[in-house]
This record gives sequence, C-alpha cells and structure tokens, in this order.
Amino acid sequence: MSFTIKNVLLATDDGYTTSDVQVVDGKITAIASNLEVVGNAIDGKNKLLLPGFVNAHTHSSEMWQRGVISAYPLELWLAELYDFAPIDTEKVYLSALGTAVETLLSGGTSVVDHLILIPGEELETIACAVRAYKEVGIRAFVAPLIQDESLTAGIPSGESSQTHEPFFRSTKATLQLIEEAVRQFHRPEEGVNILVAPTGIQLCTDALFEGCIELSDRYNLCRHSHLLETKAQEKLAQQKYGCTAVTHLKRIGYLGDRTSLAHCVWLNDADIAILAETQSTVVHNPLSNLRLGSGIAPILKYRQAGVNVTFGCDGASSNDSQDLLEAIKIGSILHNVTDFDYRQWITPRQAVEMASLGGVKGLNSADQLGSITVGKQADLVMYDLTNLSLLPRTDPIGLLVLGRPTNVVNSAWVNGKQIIANGQVTTINVDKLREELFNLSEWVSKRQSQTVGQIERHYRTVMGLI
Amino acid sequence: MSFTIKNVLLATDDGYTTSDVQVVDGKITAIASNLEVVGNAIDGKNKLLLPGFVNAHTHSSEMWQRGVISAYPLELWLAELYDFAPIDTEKVYLSALGTAVETLLSGGTSVVDHLILIPGEELETIACAVRAYKEVGIRAFVAPLIQDESLTAGIPSGESSQTHEPFFRSTKATLQLIEEAVRQFHRPEEGVNILVAPTGIQLCTDALFEGCIELSDRYNLCRHSHLLETKAQEKLAQQKYGCTAVTHLKRIGYLGDRTSLAHCVWLNDADIAILAETQSTVVHNPLSNLRLGSGIAPILKYRQAGVNVTFGCDGASSNDSQDLLEAIKIGSILHNVTDFDYRQWITPRQAVEMASLGGVKGLNSADQLGSITVGKQADLVMYDLTNLSLLPRTDPIGLLVLGRPTNVVNSAWVNGKQIIANGQVTTINVDKLREELFNLSEWVSKRQSQTVGQIERHYRTVMGLI
Repeated sequence: MSFTIKNVLLATDDGYTTSDVQVVDGKITAIASNLEVVGNAIDGKNKLLLPGFVNAHTHSSEMWQRGVISAYPLELWLAELYDFAPIDTEKVYLSALGTAVETLLSGGTSVVDHLILIPGEELETIACAVRAYKEVGIRAFVAPLIQDESLTAGIPSGESSQTHEPFFRSTKATLQLIEEAVRQFHRPEEGVNILVAPTGIQLCTDALFEGCIELSDRYNLCRHSHLLETKAQEKLAQQKYGCTAVTHLKRIGYLGDRTSLAHCVWLNDADIAILAETQSTVVHNPLSNLRLGSGIAPILKYRQAGVNVTFGCDGASSNDSQDLLEAIKIGSILHNVTDFDYRQWITPRQAVEMASLGGVKGLNSADQLGSITVGKQADLVMYDLTNLSLLPRTDPIGLLVLGRPTNVVNSAWVNGKQIIANGQVTTINVDKLREELFNLSEWVSKRQSQTVGQIERHYRTVMGLI
Repeated sequence: MSFTIKNVLLATDDGYTTSDVQVVDGKITAIASNLEVVGNAIDGKNKLLLPGFVNAHTHSSEMWQRGVISAYPLELWLAELYDFAPIDTEKVYLSALGTAVETLLSGGTSVVDHLILIPGEELETIACAVRAYKEVGIRAFVAPLIQDESLTAGIPSGESSQTHEPFFRSTKATLQLIEEAVRQFHRPEEGVNILVAPTGIQLCTDALFEGCIELSDRYNLCRHSHLLETKAQEKLAQQKYGCTAVTHLKRIGYLGDRTSLAHCVWLNDADIAILAETQSTVVHNPLSNLRLGSGIAPILKYRQAGVNVTFGCDGASSNDSQDLLEAIKIGSILHNVTDFDYRQWITPRQAVEMASLGGVKGLNSADQLGSITVGKQADLVMYDLTNLSLLPRTDPIGLLVLGRPTNVVNSAWVNGKQIIANGQVTTINVDKLREELFNLSEWVSKRQSQTVGQIERHYRTVMGLI
C-alpha cells in the first residue's frame, strides 16, 4: 500500500505540472519533484493523475437488462424492469463485479449502488454485492433500495379512485432489515459503507423516511434517494403532500449534508434554495434522464445557487452503460442548450471537480477523499495520454472530459491498493466474468411486460397522452 | 475481395437470425444458411453483422484542436478554431487518418469530410485527405469547405454598421478550384467522391451557391452544407434575405435528394416541410450541438414529416471525438426530452437504419449501399458480442446503440476489402500514427484567441448577452 509515482502530470490551478506523488499506508504523504522512492516506483511519464471519480448513483443488477428495455418513461420502464428482474443472488454478485469493473475503467474509484433487493433474500442480496465490491477492491457505498408502498402507488391517481396492494413487507420489518445490514456490513475503514436509501417520495411513507433518519443519525450513515426524476412524481408529490417533495422532505428532516439525491429534474427555484440551504447533494444522471425522457435537470441553476452537484451513471438498463466518463461528458455539455450565456457553462476542469470532490462531499468523506492532497487517502486514477483517443496532445483534462476516451485508464488505486495496472484489473479475472455473464444470458429481441399492459392506459390518461 | 461469413447474427424485421453471407468481387451475392464458402471463410459465431454506418459530417483537421477550444458558441468557437488551425498539409493527412480510424472503430465505413482548406494550398490539402482515406480504405466523401465571405460576416450586424474584409479568394477562383478537385480526385468507383460544399448561408453569396449547383449538375456531385446551426444564423438569414434560409435555398435550387445539410437546429415547420418536399437529408450532430450550445435539432419533427435524417460526429474540436456510436446514441435519446409521448421516440433499430441507409440516401448511393442486401456493395461491420460492454447478452442492437460499446468492432469491410480484422486496422500502422500525432503536438492549458478578443463584445451585444 506504499508507492511513489514518478514524473506524472498533475493539474494545477491554471495548468499542469510534472511531479512525484508518494503514498504510504494508503495515504498521500508527499507531492513534489524528485521525491525519494518509497515502496514501488511507478512510471508516470506521459500520464495524468487525477483523484478517483464517484459513480454516485447506480443500480448494479440492472446490468442484466441493459440494452433491452423498451423506449418508455420511468413509470412504465420500471414496470418492465421489475417484470424481468433477476431473482438470483449469483447474478447480483456478477453484475456488481461488472459495474465495479466498468466504473473503474472509466475513472471511478467509488460506487454508490442503490441496490435492488430480491424479496425474501434481502440480506443475501446485500452480501453478494458487498462480496463483489470487496473482491474488486472498489470503494463501495451500498444503499439497499427500500420502499413500503407498491409500484402502482408511484403513478398519480388523477381522476381515478385506484387503490394499491399493500407492500409485501412492513415498514418496521424493512427498517430492521437495514439495521441488520448495518451491523453485518457497514465497515467504512474497510471501504464498505451502508447507506439508508428509501427509494423516494413516490413509494415511501413518512414512517419509512423517519425510520431512516433515525438509523442515519444513530449509526452515522449517509442518506440516498431518488428525487423528482419525472413530471409524474412532481404531480404525485402535490397529490400526496399538497406541497413540493422538497418542502416535505425538509419538513421531516431528511435533507442535509450527508444526503445525496439522484436526478432532481423537476424542482422549482424555492426547492433549489432549500437544497442549497440544507447542503444536500444532487446526483446528476444525464444519460438516464435522456433515455427515459425524464427531462433536463437544471444543473446550471444548482451550481449558481451553490448546490453541490456530482454525476452518476444510473442503473445500466436506463443508460445503458456504466461508463462514468460518458456521464461526465454528457452531464457537462447537455446544459449548454439550457443557458444561452456560455459564461455559465461547465468547463472540463469544473466537471472533474464535480465528479471527484463533489461526489465525496455527498458521502460525508470530503475530508478523506476527492482530491490529490497530502493527508488524504490514495483513491487515484492514472490516465495514459498516449492513447489514440487522447491524441493529438492538447489539454489533457479537456480531452478526457470532452472526448470519448477508450482504454485510457492505465492504473487505479483505492486506499493505496492498486486494482488496475497497465489497463488491466488485477484483482479479479475479467475474462472469467465475461464468460459467466455470457453463459447466464441469451440474446432476445422483443419481450412483453405484463405489468405495462396493465398500467399503460392509466399512465397515458393521467399524463395527458390520450 | 471475395469471402463468406459463416453463422453470423443478422437482424430480421422482428428479431435476429443466424445465417451465412457471401461476398464476391466486393458485392453481396448470397445470404442464406449453409452457403458454400467462396473466398476466405470468416467465423461469424457470436458476432453481429450490420451495414457500415456513415459519419455524415465531420471536419477531419479539427482533430488537432480537440479538447482545447473554450466553452463558446459556434461564432466565437470558430474564431478560436481559425486562430489556431493547422497550416501544414502533413497534419491534414494525419488527422484524416485519425478520423478514418476512429470512424471505422465505431462502426463507420464512410466518412463525409467537410474539409477545411489551407489558404494557398487548397488542392494539396484535398490531395492529403484523399491519400489518407485511400490508404485506410474507408469510403470517402470529401467536401472541400468553401466560402466567399469573411468570418465576421457570419455574425448578424444588429444595430451596428460593421463592414467586413472581402474574402481573400474570388468566387470564380473558388469554383475553378472545386472543378479542378473534381477532375483530379472524384473517382466514385475507387471509393473517393468529391462534393460541392459551400459552408452555409452565413458565409456564402448566392453566386457561390449557384456555381456549386451548376458543378453538381454537370458532374453529378452531391451537395453538402451547414444549415441553421445557431440562433445567430437564423437572425442572419432574415437580415440577408428577408426570409428563412430554407426558403431562400429552395428558391435558388440548392435543395434536393443529393443535398445533405448538417445541423438544421433552427428551422420552423414550414422549413421542415420544404426539406421533406425536396427530399433533402438532415445530418444530425448531437454532440457538437450540445458542446456549442447550438440547441436541440427538432429531429422527431423531421422524422414525422418524412425528412431523411442521419448522424455525424462533426469535427473533433466541437465534439470532441469521432466515435459514431456515441453520436448515434446521443442523437437517439436526446430527443426523448423534447416529446413527452414515448411512442415517438427513436428506437435502437431505427437509429441503426438512420445511420446506415439514412446516411447513404443523402449521398445518392442508396441503391448501392446502406443495407445487407444481395446485389449491394459489401460495406459491412461485424461486432464482437462477447465484449464486456455488450454483456450480459440481451438485444444486440439495443446494447450497441444504448450502451457504450468499447473495442467491439471485430471486422470491417469496404467494397468487400477487409480493413479491420480482429479489432485491428489492417491497412495502416496505428501505432506509428499515434507516435506522429504525439510528436507533432504538445500539452497546453490555456490559449488566448486574438479574434475572439476582437469580436466577443459585438457578439454579446447582438445576441442580447450584454
């Protein structure tokens, strides 16, 4: 866990410098020229060193359905997703491995997995994901996805007098489950964190949110939820609370500097001010928001209001990849069409800071992670600047963010442990993983989701599409 | 130029089938099971065969400035681009090689290069690009970018009484140049086509458009231009013609089924009807339109009106890559936020057809190219479905379009000649190319464009930003 990178390119305030970086026992101990080599010497020539990024919102097991879910908005897409979701913990393990590998190969050293739980095998599901992340060595923030209302409750009722099946597990049992998961798996010092993660206002009662707040406070856990991903959810919040979802979440005390909120597409200016005031973090998932037609999150407004923003890939069936550099690129340039004044646009350097420091802020870890600073933990990624996709040489960070870098991660370290070397994952056998993913799946073209058949008409009516 | 692919996955109307594909003398001669092997036998197992895509709008030499141009709208971005444009034909040759390689490795077998000409070395510039494309073996549509007004004329004058320097070369000399380029380089049967390519209404007089129409008719050349990429150009058209640019171009006879128009962001419904009526092709460059803040082109409206649409990467300093699969993905899902009714959204299969058949339609080649059909030329790409980025197995085309495929092109053929085998370009030495791109460039952070300094204040005034 000790090494010294020689002659690597580092970003400075207004340019680049070539320097050495020394890591001892997983922490950055020195950054200067001509440092004594402690531990292994790593050649940094023609390479760029950046802090590892955070894939700040994903659902790993969605990898089993990437590329196949129909062109639907979230509410129908979810119905198809759940109709075909894997119910096999071995698959959960494999897709967590796949998510970790793709995240690492695109500059991420941390992943927030809003993990879909297999009913009746909830703790086993969590155990499988945790095992996968520990094997790969990526820093894991496992956020077991919980709810206490049934899927159909997530669609506004409109004029109808629909009732919904009660959720199969009680609120109390769900909270006990999370507490047990914390006892079994929450080991921040080993790189595994459990988060409280009620899926969002669309499928959670206040009792569930309040139970999560209590657990978060008692065990010092971060909080993670979806927030106002779709216009339907905006309508639903008004129907449920008579106010915006953000106003309600503030009132019940869910927001704060350990709370990260995925999507945040349908917020108004007052909501944005509340996020700033509570120091909550927005996780922007641009590709998923486009794929599902959710809308363009007002990211430039968040930044102007002082809200911390970072990036996520979202689950691989609404994206449909786990390439963090792609999310960072699109999450930066997408907003140039929302504000005509180019002086507000996100620059590549700002994007890198959002993806690194911005990510760890929302995970209550900014004192330990997110920048190349003496005293911080060594979650680092080194990029090969001789790769064709980063040539000709111009601005390395510009090329990385605005280009489409391919095979550019030369090395990655988490807590000082090297888990990618020479572009290859060193901790697991990726060829074997590919073989298993191949063997456990088959090519399909069309599928029919039964649940979509049941709810589509109501959805179209409520959303004014009929 | 003869070979037989055995047991490859092909798309059918509603699914996939495994079949053999026979190619003789560059043409597809049979598609069926258990075909006799003619020429080389190619193993198609676990691979998907698609028609090659068209990178239907790019500017190859922009590769020298990718990753580095400031966050500017087109008009200022162009000023910075030209301040630092390469003036060295060797660089033009190398960036054409790079553009060809990146296009091929992302599924393209044809490239439309709206080629920026080095003043005084115009024919040499074209010769260098043609040489590069012939060496790589990609099908080339070289569209020498011409104009007869100076750069500042492309910004609306507003209240100012600005005058502009005359363009350094006369309209007549420019047209003679293009005619000479046609004589020297236009060899469709060898895979090299010259197009007439006035850059757009913002920098071209009617005399230049009319001269291009005449050359196009006389030599049977396709026509290629930018059209209404920015709001500034929409204003400019009104100032110049007192009507929309599309109305004007129709009036002078520029539109037609051999005319492809890059961007088409700022068109109204009447303009769209004109494009449909004239059977013009829209080339959608989604990444460039985002990067430059140009806006979201109304692609779903084009499709509904029956306008042919295809995709381009645009030049590598407004994107900043030449990955066609990225352009296809973003160009498909971007529009899900412009129309709430998901039944209008572009599906992966539609996107593939737009990128292949849609591309060649605009190049007057739909009878020869763009689909896997007996009798058509073999411009084919075979994808490796065992690659991690295409696993687990689901819908192969869905994975290809909606995912972020990396290193997935196993083989590519143009006119039956194999130019990628086992994921490697067979015709040129890519390592040597990388070395040359590296050696002829340097890492930079900030640059100051003198021209931006001169015109920014006027631009901000005219566009209402001051």
